[in-house]
Amino acid sequence: MSFVVEGAEVLLYLNDRKSWILKVERGKKFHTHKGIVNFEDLIGKPYGSEIVTSLGIALKILPADYLDHLERIARKTQIIYPKDMAYIALVANVRSGSKVVECGTGSGALTSYLASLVGPDGKVFTYEMREDFQKNAKKNLERLGLEKFVEFKLKDITKGIDEKEVDAVILDMATPWLVVEEARKALKIGGRMVSFSPTINQVEKTVTAMEKAQFINIKAVELIMRGYKVKVNETRPDTLMIGHTGYIVSGRRC
Amino acid sequence: MSFVVEGAEVLLYLNDRKSWILKVERGKKFHTHKGIVNFEDLIGKPYGSEIVTSLGIALKILPADYLDHLERIARKTQIIYPKDMAYIALVANVRSGSKVVECGTGSGALTSYLASLVGPDGKVFTYEMREDFQKNAKKNLERLGLEKFVEFKLKDITKGIDEKEVDAVILDMATPWLVVEEARKALKIGGRMVSFSPTINQVEKTVTAMEKAQFINIKAVELIMRGYKVKVNETRPDTLMIGHTGYIVSGRRC
Amino acid sequence: MSFVVEGAEVLLYLNDRKSWILKVERGKKFHTHKGIVNFEDLIGKPYGSEIVTSLGIALKILPADYLDHLERIARKTQIIYPKDMAYIALVANVRSGSKVVECGTGSGALTSYLASLVGPDGKVFTYEMREDFQKNAKKNLERLGLEKFVEFKLKDITKGIDEKEVDAVILDMATPWLVVEEARKALKIGGRMVSFSPTINQVEKTVTAMEKAQFINIKAVELIMRGYKVKVNETRPDTLMIGHTGYIVSGRRC
Amino acid sequence: MSFVVEGAEVLLYLNDRKSWILKVERGKKFHTHKGIVNFEDLIGKPYGSEIVTSLGIALKILPADYLDHLERIARKTQIIYPKDMAYIALVANVRSGSKVVECGTGSGALTSYLASLVGPDGKVFTYEMREDFQKNAKKNLERLGLEKFVEFKLKDITKGIDEKEVDAVILDMATPWLVVEEARKALKIGGRMVSFSPTINQVEKTVTAMEKAQFINIKAVELIMRGYKVKVNETRPDTLMIGHTGYIVSGRRC
Repeated sequence: MSFVVEGAEVLLYLNDRKSWILKVERGKKFHTHKGIVNFEDLIGKPYGSEIVTSLGIALKILPADYLDHLERIARKTQIIYPKDMAYIALVANVRSGSKVVECGTGSGALTSYLASLVGPDGKVFTYEMREDFQKNAKKNLERLGLEKFVEFKLKDITKGIDEKEVDAVILDMATPWLVVEEARKALKIGGRMVSFSPTINQVEKTVTAMEKAQFINIKAVELIMRGYKVKVNETRPDTLMIGHTGYIVSGRRC
Repeated sequence: MSFVVEGAEVLLYLNDRKSWILKVERGKKFHTHKGIVNFEDLIGKPYGSEIVTSLGIALKILPADYLDHLERIARKTQIIYPKDMAYIALVANVRSGSKVVECGTGSGALTSYLASLVGPDGKVFTYEMREDFQKNAKKNLERLGLEKFVEFKLKDITKGIDEKEVDAVILDMATPWLVVEEARKALKIGGRMVSFSPTINQVEKTVTAMEKAQFINIKAVELIMRGYKVKVNETRPDTLMIGHTGYIVSGRRC
Repeated sequence: MSFVVEGAEVLLYLNDRKSWILKVERGKKFHTHKGIVNFEDLIGKPYGSEIVTSLGIALKILPADYLDHLERIARKTQIIYPKDMAYIALVANVRSGSKVVECGTGSGALTSYLASLVGPDGKVFTYEMREDFQKNAKKNLERLGLEKFVEFKLKDITKGIDEKEVDAVILDMATPWLVVEEARKALKIGGRMVSFSPTINQVEKTVTAMEKAQFINIKAVELIMRGYKVKVNETRPDTLMIGHTGYIVSGRRC
Repeated sequence: MSFVVEGAEVLLYLNDRKSWILKVERGKKFHTHKGIVNFEDLIGKPYGSEIVTSLGIALKILPADYLDHLERIARKTQIIYPKDMAYIALVANVRSGSKVVECGTGSGALTSYLASLVGPDGKVFTYEMREDFQKNAKKNLERLGLEKFVEFKLKDITKGIDEKEVDAVILDMATPWLVVEEARKALKIGGRMVSFSPTINQVEKTVTAMEKAQFINIKAVELIMRGYKVKVNETRPDTLMIGHTGYIVSGRRC
């Protein structure tokens, strides 16, 4: 059994639609439309137990984990969907110890996922041209305790990749085809390049550039996720769904 | 630049449809319908260069990486598709350092992917009832150098999970609903359970069991992967596709 | 060239998101937030020309066709989606001259589509238990000029189908499996039964009942429609889509 | 009850995977690997009964209907899939009495479906440049008894459409964008143009041409059909599926 301590990132859970992440700081209070929670009262409580707000609403206390934080980031900025992040990481062969170049940093959501996989011995080198994006991403990574596995670079990646012999180059940017030749040079032999793009025209251009740069195993796919409403005797797919997020192009330096 | 050494796992690449993985052993020869390759000749060659077979066919020399091995395993036994493996790992919150229970081991494909993410500080505890499956899986994990992150258990998981306070329980078995209560007991508060099943009826039973065990954030989804034939002015989705692999049910212990 | 006459069903078209269907009646006016249109001014105008409202907005004048009316009905009640209607009609082998039993009538949308195909020599026999539904459907069919190809029946179809030797039985109801035996008796040898249901459990029950009633060529499918945002260099599937409408089960009396 | 007569098109049904269509001709025999059937013995038998081959195999006797013939044509040449044919007919507003231009004729499969809907008062004008295709299509339509609703034209449609004020123009050809202006001229005001193309690039060009020709309600969609293996407690989508047939672009002359 483990207990809430000062400084912990806690999830207060009302139901599947509503929950809050908060950092427990002695002396502070948390205000919500369901009432006030005194942080002082949280400290020492076992995870899995409940706390009652000033309005008498019971909230479950859970440790906030990586996926909770990812959802928090997703609520504030548009991020690559988890289904795509997961598959990108796999086809880029990202794993414990990998050295990965990523562009652009954006809100740091994909950066954080890559960082959570490569640590403690790997590294993510993430390129971004907008300083405000980078700042926000740094804050997100710090809150997750993952900043030590990331090197943030404020640089136009089309001007060149500083790193050499990297395991993977992952691109989530408007013009990935302009980086293909740089990606080739940065990758080790057999290393993987993966690009994520919303339009089919970007896919055509990226694949063409990869063929020209003699990548092998070039593949373009998309992942369509279908949610289900499961109820005995009334099970059916969700009526509304996200029909498209983007295409994933991958290939291997030869 | 890096070079082929004795004992290396090398990929000899003919084209996107045909390549071979081999362990370089001095004195041995590799026979294929494209001719013979003498291992002696491979040693010392730089990766990215070519070797010519006795029949005059040039093969590219690449280091065999994790994904190459995964494909090799997939050719021999039916494994969970990479798209599903990747998403399962993400929604189970598996990452560097995680402590994960898995059942069944099968060919060890999913085991190997989980192991490649949790190392060096995490661990995968994998349950299997058939000794022959376990033996084969062990061999696969050893060849990948990932066996040190795995504890193989020859045991019926419906009889109980030995581990406590684990981060995730991942089930790929015929009757996942029979393990839901055991999964709950093994998981830490806030830990994740994920189950993969081919039929919708299994999904109904698993979700029902998870509701009874008071899991929260229960979700059932499926991932549909569509491949594309990309060619300037002739781009289109593949005509034939895998229409279904399985459903992924996930939830969180509360 | 053809011209607007009194009594015509006209479509006033503002743009792809906004248009109005109206029946031209001398002496009346049409009020909209884009201004007033005097019906008197419409009469005699050629189709394809424009009429200007009292607020100076130009509206295109088109003849309202069947699909316009279908959209009008769809805006007011939930109807079977056109993609499903079209496929149901095909697998039920509905065509010029067919004799078709349908249940339930609902808003008459599917009834109207079937009627538009079977006329002038075929007939649709449509069963409904709720009088208010039937009344509304009759009104819809009359406005479309298709009521002469339809026989409306206020009757519980599970109590029996009056017609014999029909070409097709089409079911869009909560418990289609209860009608399978009646459908068999009403169908001619080789006739087709088609059922539309939103849940997979209904599909299981219907297929089981059809197997018991010795139907052949039993098939269960679903049609997923994906819309595209087409723009040179920015083409991509729509982000939001209808993920599920229903399953279509079909079979043939033997 | 109805009986097999001379000249009838009969379906001999072994099982869902194997059946034969044959025209009953007195004095002839039908040879199959399941044995011989004497046509003489078929005449006078009631539909729904069985006939036993010389090898003792029982075959069900059904009247061959339109869908049986469509399948027969599909086995010999590549045709537009039924799901697409049905939706094309609906969005083109094809119904009893419609006047429809179609190009190309191909094997006549789509022609036959349109003809089966427009008769007895409508007409399908079908353009084709290859005489051998046209000949084969004519034979198919005659066998179906639908040739009287079709006018076959051996002509390059890009050179002009002879018909005026048609209800719909339906294109299934490599370069539909070259016909858009001709289609506009042939259509009545409010008439519908529908085009079917396998690649996304064709869709881009067709939509662009339709925008230039001031079509309204331009839409591009695709229909994805998923089959299900339905069995109590083991229901699941088919593993293999057709992932792509083509895109359907539709619009309306204004």
